[in-house]
Amino acid sequence: MTALDLKGIIPPVSTPVTDDGELAIDDLRRHVTFLLESGVHGLFLLGSTSETVGLTDAQQEEVIAIALELAKGKVPVIVGAIDFTTNRVIERARRFAALGIDGLVVLSPFYIKPTPTEIVRHYTRIREAIDLPIVAYDIPSAIQTKLDRGSVRELAKAGTIVGLKDSSGQEANFRGVIIDNADLPDFRIFTGSELVTDAALLMGAHGCVPGLGNVDPAGYVRLYEAAIARDYATLRSEQERLYQLFDITAVAKRPEIGWSAAAWGSFKVALKLRGIIEHAAPTSPMTPFTAEEEAQVATILTRASLL
Amino acid sequence: MTALDLKGIIPPVSTPVTDDGELAIDDLRRHVTFLLESGVHGLFLLGSTSETVGLTDAQQEEVIAIALELAKGKVPVIVGAIDFTTNRVIERARRFAALGIDGLVVLSPFYIKPTPTEIVRHYTRIREAIDLPIVAYDIPSAIQTKLDRGSVRELAKAGTIVGLKDSSGQEANFRGVIIDNADLPDFRIFTGSELVTDAALLMGAHGCVPGLGNVDPAGYVRLYEAAIARDYATLRSEQERLYQLFDITAVAKRPEIGWSAAAWGSFKVALKLRGIIEHAAPTSPMTPFTAEEEAQVATILTRASLL
Amino acid sequence: MTALDLKGIIPPVSTPVTDDGELAIDDLRRHVTFLLESGVHGLFLLGSTSETVGLTDAQQEEVIAIALELAKGKVPVIVGAIDFTTNRVIERARRFAALGIDGLVVLSPFYIKPTPTEIVRHYTRIREAIDLPIVAYDIPSAIQTKLDRGSVRELAKAGTIVGLKDSSGQEANFRGVIIDNADLPDFRIFTGSELVTDAALLMGAHGCVPGLGNVDPAGYVRLYEAAIARDYATLRSEQERLYQLFDITAVAKRPEIGWSAAAWGSFKVALKLRGIIEHAAPTSPMTPFTAEEEAQVATILTRASLL
Amino acid sequence: MTALDLKGIIPPVSTPVTDDGELAIDDLRRHVTFLLESGVHGLFLLGSTSETVGLTDAQQEEVIAIALELAKGKVPVIVGAIDFTTNRVIERARRFAALGIDGLVVLSPFYIKPTPTEIVRHYTRIREAIDLPIVAYDIPSAIQTKLDRGSVRELAKAGTIVGLKDSSGQEANFRGVIIDNADLPDFRIFTGSELVTDAALLMGAHGCVPGLGNVDPAGYVRLYEAAIARDYATLRSEQERLYQLFDITAVAKRPEIGWSAAAWGSFKVALKLRGIIEHAAPTSPMTPFTAEEEAQVATILTRASLL
Repeated sequence: MTALDLKGIIPPVSTPVTDDGELAIDDLRRHVTFLLESGVHGLFLLGSTSETVGLTDAQQEEVIAIALELAKGKVPVIVGAIDFTTNRVIERARRFAALGIDGLVVLSPFYIKPTPTEIVRHYTRIREAIDLPIVAYDIPSAIQTKLDRGSVRELAKAGTIVGLKDSSGQEANFRGVIIDNADLPDFRIFTGSELVTDAALLMGAHGCVPGLGNVDPAGYVRLYEAAIARDYATLRSEQERLYQLFDITAVAKRPEIGWSAAAWGSFKVALKLRGIIEHAAPTSPMTPFTAEEEAQVATILTRASLL
Repeated sequence: MTALDLKGIIPPVSTPVTDDGELAIDDLRRHVTFLLESGVHGLFLLGSTSETVGLTDAQQEEVIAIALELAKGKVPVIVGAIDFTTNRVIERARRFAALGIDGLVVLSPFYIKPTPTEIVRHYTRIREAIDLPIVAYDIPSAIQTKLDRGSVRELAKAGTIVGLKDSSGQEANFRGVIIDNADLPDFRIFTGSELVTDAALLMGAHGCVPGLGNVDPAGYVRLYEAAIARDYATLRSEQERLYQLFDITAVAKRPEIGWSAAAWGSFKVALKLRGIIEHAAPTSPMTPFTAEEEAQVATILTRASLL
Repeated sequence: MTALDLKGIIPPVSTPVTDDGELAIDDLRRHVTFLLESGVHGLFLLGSTSETVGLTDAQQEEVIAIALELAKGKVPVIVGAIDFTTNRVIERARRFAALGIDGLVVLSPFYIKPTPTEIVRHYTRIREAIDLPIVAYDIPSAIQTKLDRGSVRELAKAGTIVGLKDSSGQEANFRGVIIDNADLPDFRIFTGSELVTDAALLMGAHGCVPGLGNVDPAGYVRLYEAAIARDYATLRSEQERLYQLFDITAVAKRPEIGWSAAAWGSFKVALKLRGIIEHAAPTSPMTPFTAEEEAQVATILTRASLL
Repeated sequence: MTALDLKGIIPPVSTPVTDDGELAIDDLRRHVTFLLESGVHGLFLLGSTSETVGLTDAQQEEVIAIALELAKGKVPVIVGAIDFTTNRVIERARRFAALGIDGLVVLSPFYIKPTPTEIVRHYTRIREAIDLPIVAYDIPSAIQTKLDRGSVRELAKAGTIVGLKDSSGQEANFRGVIIDNADLPDFRIFTGSELVTDAALLMGAHGCVPGLGNVDPAGYVRLYEAAIARDYATLRSEQERLYQLFDITAVAKRPEIGWSAAAWGSFKVALKLRGIIEHAAPTSPMTPFTAEEEAQVATILTRASLL
């Protein structure tokens, strides 16, 4: 297994698709290039923000191939093998591993209401089956199970997982994970809390996986560098600027549009407005933004000096 | 599209696997035969109880092929195309449709926190893409979204769905669905509430999809026939007997074993004890029953005159 | 302790108040008289629907005194001693007991996230301190704790509680309580599920505590009598009529008005429209109905032949 | 209305009671004295940690009188008027105001599932009725309603509330409140997140209301002073020490003991072990600690250099 040195800003890469649901290949190329040129420290493909649950198996593999072509060797490329239970994750991960990715991102089993014992068994069997580093992904809002501190500790100590992406929004528990594993210097802990990333870095996190980092990767890189430099004034002001930029996720409030469509969609709309991509459509069946909502996103981008 | 006449007892067929996670083909054949000989009115393959989320794509198709071989033309065979969002369901449903199934069972989109508008769009696009009758499947405990009465009504009236399987456990809302759609005689409404099936049938439900029906299909058929015959004394006593049989799902209480493993696993253990199948293993990573837990299941089966 | 023979329809009596939040005494008298003349089998004062949480201590005692004056000796009058924990309930119950009520209705402790052990201790200590029959009240939607079957059984067997009012909406569990306690003929089990009361009665429930019974007590009495008489056709048609009457609770849908204000308020508005009371105001800070919403309630009442 | 200058560490004062549930008056005096001598910046009486929901009305008033006798004029004494809805809070608050407290702490209405409109109306009416500064208290885990940013902003801007105690554990939203109200220098924002207090202070919070501050008030005062002094190394190390001290809340894990009893009880046990109080009993019906559990608390206190 190759070593995997994760740190810094690793955005969950948005996946542009056309109105017909086809992968927008040129858009994806431009977006990956934009992220790399903005100085991000890695790419996380096929995560929640990437709408991986909206992509077919073939589209998922195509995303990986395109991103690897552009990023391979420059920054680590880790990929979500999002599926319900052990054997399905293994099958998916095998196909992804064959494409040359650097690491896997794996959820706890879901739909089956697992116990910690079952969660640990899940990660352990996947790790035994696939010769790739695994980052555990904790997002209870999506899968209804919190990855508990004890399981993280057990998996980290055994070397089953090399890192954690914590998108639980439970900052006190997150600090506990950092304290628990302080004796494992190679275990890398990332927050998904893009609005209190500064706090996570000061607690000892190794980096962040910010959905909003699709829109302003340079801002998150500056944030990370300010934390490393212990430049507290810049750290806070940059985080507050990004906090207000996040208002784009609250623009679409019609009863027709769900939370995911409103949040993930706002990133695509912003990328379109910034000229990075042409297609801001969501995957089916999510509701697209109206022209008026796009205009409101533009106003917020302008306020944040991004237009 | 062929007409699909659904009614009565349609169990969500348990899927036997070996300790190694291989499909236990002979077990599955014997189990399907057992269900058919017990008089069930249909088969629901690849549902929650079937552990479809624990089966690989190839295993799912193999289950369909085996069941169809035994049941085709005898009773309707409907199949769960369980996946996150529209395009993924369509892709999966196309593969299943090619095998000759009689109807699809489809969940609301999940992981993406959809609105009713997005849910209706989801079902509509799937129906447009696949020439098979669709039964909507409402199980908020698994996917965190309740299929609301308004969406059911809209989909039923448009003919997008031909029926509903309601496993929400919300009996008052269920009655509302029945009342709402009383003017659509071909719309078929099934409860998944196996412990108050009698009540659902008296409210006007067309049948039940009972997980426990794997273990005692004849009991559920008797229950259904008593409801049709308005034999209220038998209806209540048979339901109460089945209620107590359901205690098998509460046998496994160790902290190691999750709710799904305890419930779905108890059905397999009971089938093994009844001599229908040889393999009671759960799909990975769920925890199997201990010998002691199996003995407790046997005690309950004996009490219910099933051993 | 006096014996307490509870059965049938025991509505949770709405509490009329003026726009200024004063108790509307004449309204309350007329409403209690209306309920008694409609043939209800008991009165439940100071429950959730009664807005007991919106009344001051003095108002609560005044409600009891007025209702007892009219109902004492005619039907049992039971009273909710709604408070957080043991000692506070005891203090409140002592004041209420001194007024001559026939029984107490008591919640599990709340705000403190209790275990079953703590719940059983709570009821036991209250019973030791107060010489009145206690009915346990299970309403997890209000207090976030489900009263589990094991605790109900333990309390019923010990004689600590003489009955249960189950407003959990969990019909399968409710049936379990009935089966568990079939050997205790004096233990009385009431459902709060006013939309599937027929089903509860067929399962063996002794009666119902319907909020909607404030509006149409005679309808619920007919429903109960049909169940006793095993007149299944009347049972279903009466329940379906009441089901549709319940639409009044869904009339007020403005973002300004909460679920409780919309439901409890609709009962008061209906009573005003039916000429029973003059004041339909909610207790503070709940939002009152608009004239337009009142008109919609009137339409539904007319449809149900109540206007 | 007197001005109220709130800042720094304001612990929610634990309320010692005897095994019989009597107020342990000498204990309370010693504990208040201990807190004052440790340098806390204010006292919050009758909050959640204070077990106010376990105290009778008379006990609540006695707690206020004792604390005021010791603290009046030294630090601000604010008091929770915890009750369900507007009129009940007003009645309670009037009694408390008459005792000479410096400010009220008020929850959103609960049990009634309020909307933001109803919440704002609640606070506004209380403020109109009582001539005391009000601090809003946001603790959705106890009352199931989140106090939203919009309502806080509206209430703060109108001067209805002078501050917020945010015990929601939602740090990203908390930062939003700080940013929203940056133009209101007199509006004071406190976190209840005792494990990430450092982060809250760096975001701009004015202080913390730490339950654990009962046990180690001097530690929290040091934490606060380090934040003021921008001494980041001390800030982090002090917070991490307090984080590990919080392990006392996880000592009692028996199924008999609930979350509240385990957490609030651990503070009392620690105070007993530290020699501040004699009685560590919880209010009824909460389960007390065993001797073995007390020993485990002692071990943790020793590790934190507090024994």
